[in-house]
Amino acid sequence: MKKEEILSTITGGPADTTQLKDVLSEVNTMNTADIAEVFEDLHEGQLIQMFRILPKAIAADVFAFMDSDHQQHIIEALTHTEISEIMDKLFVDDAVDFLEEMPANVVRRVLKNVQREKRKIINQILRYPDDSAGSIMTTEFVDLSEDATVKEAFDTIRKIGLNSETIYNCYVMRKDRTLVGVISAKTLMLSRPRDRIGDIMDTNVVFAYTTDDQETIADQFQKYGFLAMPVVDKEKRLVGIITVDDIVDVIIEEHTEDIEKMAALVPSDDPYLKTSILRHSKNRFVWMLILMLSATITGTIISSFEDGLMVLPILMSFIPMLMNTGGIAGSQSSTLIVRGMAVGEINLKDIAIVLWKEIRIGMLCGLGLGLVNFIRVFIMNNQDVLLCLTITLSLFCTILMAKTVGSVLPIFAKRLKIDPAIMSAPLLTTIVDAVSLIIYFSFAKIIFGL
Amino acid sequence: MKKEEILSTITGGPADTTQLKDVLSEVNTMNTADIAEVFEDLHEGQLIQMFRILPKAIAADVFAFMDSDHQQHIIEALTHTEISEIMDKLFVDDAVDFLEEMPANVVRRVLKNVQREKRKIINQILRYPDDSAGSIMTTEFVDLSEDATVKEAFDTIRKIGLNSETIYNCYVMRKDRTLVGVISAKTLMLSRPRDRIGDIMDTNVVFAYTTDDQETIADQFQKYGFLAMPVVDKEKRLVGIITVDDIVDVIIEEHTEDIEKMAALVPSDDPYLKTSILRHSKNRFVWMLILMLSATITGTIISSFEDGLMVLPILMSFIPMLMNTGGIAGSQSSTLIVRGMAVGEINLKDIAIVLWKEIRIGMLCGLGLGLVNFIRVFIMNNQDVLLCLTITLSLFCTILMAKTVGSVLPIFAKRLKIDPAIMSAPLLTTIVDAVSLIIYFSFAKIIFGL
Repeated sequence: MKKEEILSTITGGPADTTQLKDVLSEVNTMNTADIAEVFEDLHEGQLIQMFRILPKAIAADVFAFMDSDHQQHIIEALTHTEISEIMDKLFVDDAVDFLEEMPANVVRRVLKNVQREKRKIINQILRYPDDSAGSIMTTEFVDLSEDATVKEAFDTIRKIGLNSETIYNCYVMRKDRTLVGVISAKTLMLSRPRDRIGDIMDTNVVFAYTTDDQETIADQFQKYGFLAMPVVDKEKRLVGIITVDDIVDVIIEEHTEDIEKMAALVPSDDPYLKTSILRHSKNRFVWMLILMLSATITGTIISSFEDGLMVLPILMSFIPMLMNTGGIAGSQSSTLIVRGMAVGEINLKDIAIVLWKEIRIGMLCGLGLGLVNFIRVFIMNNQDVLLCLTITLSLFCTILMAKTVGSVLPIFAKRLKIDPAIMSAPLLTTIVDAVSLIIYFSFAKIIFGL
Repeated sequence: MKKEEILSTITGGPADTTQLKDVLSEVNTMNTADIAEVFEDLHEGQLIQMFRILPKAIAADVFAFMDSDHQQHIIEALTHTEISEIMDKLFVDDAVDFLEEMPANVVRRVLKNVQREKRKIINQILRYPDDSAGSIMTTEFVDLSEDATVKEAFDTIRKIGLNSETIYNCYVMRKDRTLVGVISAKTLMLSRPRDRIGDIMDTNVVFAYTTDDQETIADQFQKYGFLAMPVVDKEKRLVGIITVDDIVDVIIEEHTEDIEKMAALVPSDDPYLKTSILRHSKNRFVWMLILMLSATITGTIISSFEDGLMVLPILMSFIPMLMNTGGIAGSQSSTLIVRGMAVGEINLKDIAIVLWKEIRIGMLCGLGLGLVNFIRVFIMNNQDVLLCLTITLSLFCTILMAKTVGSVLPIFAKRLKIDPAIMSAPLLTTIVDAVSLIIYFSFAKIIFGL
């Protein structure tokens, strides 16, 4: 049965019990992420009806995969007992993700129906700063003692394994909960039952503090190829783990943030369609305003050359071409450098190499484009060689300048500990626009003696 | 010992055996990714010396973490036997990643020293198209038969587990190698030894074909939170698996590609510093050329209004401000829409909602910026109300137009099956520039009667 068939059976008419049972046995074979997708297409009443008859074992999983609007609908329709059942089965990190999106009254209603122990943990994680390791960790993991044997470790895994998010890395703690080692399920399986955990564990554990930034942690997952990473508090006591599936979400979130910053937007965590007009306008207004006001500089430069432009008005028509080509030349360079620094490929010490590279690229591109442009202007403007020369020389210098500024700005920003992605776009545009006009008018003055 | 200490011990002077042994015992406790990092800072001679004395068990792992330049240095210095030992221990996907970056003569030398069976597999993967599932998969995984018991499964894992990249998902095949199910190590550990695999496996396997695009696969890893995913050939026979650590790399690679496309660059897989000047220039030239030539349109529009500009030269100085503000307004919208479509948040059917949203945002931002601009022009230009009115009305309409075009263009591109990221930047700039000039000059004509 395809998604469409299931949907049409459910939505086809008043559902009788046999029909529902058919659908249900079909749904049971599906992946929980897929069930969530099908459910999200149902009308509210049907959604609640279907959710209620889901086997308890998978209901919490399906719930975790749904978006926050649907989660809210479901929670508002369920009884206290039903909420309690769902929350019981939900992993702590999924519960936190869900609660972070809910209005205060829903949060209160949900937390009232959570066991005291779990509620304490959820509240604690909810208080960690946004984007910190603490806010994305889960507290369901397998912890072992140094003195346990491999056989005892397997017993522990069998006992608490079903309730922990991953059993593939087990963490070894002292009595005071200090983290001392890690052991993978692979090592356990390949060891003898009587081996002592303390002797076969890996003591070289890479861990994060609860306050560490999620982006740094994502970098480490990428570097080491981890499946999970332990999180400790200030006293190095183990408090949680972060799993790779959450890190994939972090990487995609940070990616969106980077792209938004580069497009002169205030980054936002909320999905496009669910953000209000006012919030959208706010996120865009600041940088538009700054760029608009900074254009006063270009305006002043043009005004100061008004007399020259009056004598040779054709010069006006090339201003947009020069500014656009310069703008794109600069943003190409700055984008590559910002990205190169983000993935750790370009470092502050590479500034001389990068600059020398960009200067040569600028000369090469400037020569090529200058040539094409010379021919175009020559043909379209009555073979006016002086005009061709002015435009071509200006274009060459503009591209060279733009590539230089575009490569140096992000590196300077990084050195000044400003986010290169935010700084480069508006400042680069302003500098390139202004300098390209000065270059253009200078050549015009010299060549035409204006 | 910190990275710096190890380095200084190695590079401090002629290394005698005791010193080397000290360093080595230190190195042995480190994570292989970190060892690779330390080694990459050594001079070539020292690198080879250190690499040779690394325990065989970790040498291949360290090798896999190094960048291709250092890999090449090492391979060129090693004997046939040493190469053979490394290649024996290297996972097939790491071996392929390494060979893809090597010149043909190195590839030949390496493949000559690989066991026949493994060489066949490597050759096969090397032939899969770039960015396909086949090209990133590994062939080292645990496969089980339906009729095996849990106890037999554990024996299999113990036997072939050490050589497979992950043991946390085991794949169940029929005799003809058709994929029929998957079973996690977690399920195995929580089952009874006599249970039959065929009865407890999950038959609802999400798999990829060797020819599937890596980006689609990355989306599925994100959707389902997988640790690994099986890859099958056309006949649904299991040929390999893809693990989540490789998918993290894919996501970051695709992210770089998106950013490059949005900045009007031809995307490239090569790192910035290792790309030649000529290649860099080529990647940038095309879009610069297109944008430069398309600026002929704006040039023509300005020329056609030359007479008006002669009468009221102050109008010239506002052209860059209008074009820049319009440009950024449009790119903000298109960036959000392109990204929203990439993460599956915005679909083709949402076009009306998006358009209506952007129109209202455009009006709101246009009103705000128009107001600020009115005041600025009023103060800076001798309280010339007609001029203020012309600029403000043009600014408002330009922003509204840019937001509309910026939101509709990527959706159209998607419908025409063109990559929205590539299409939006240059086409958007051209349209917004041209239309904003037409708006501006029209208002000027009406208000000043030029």
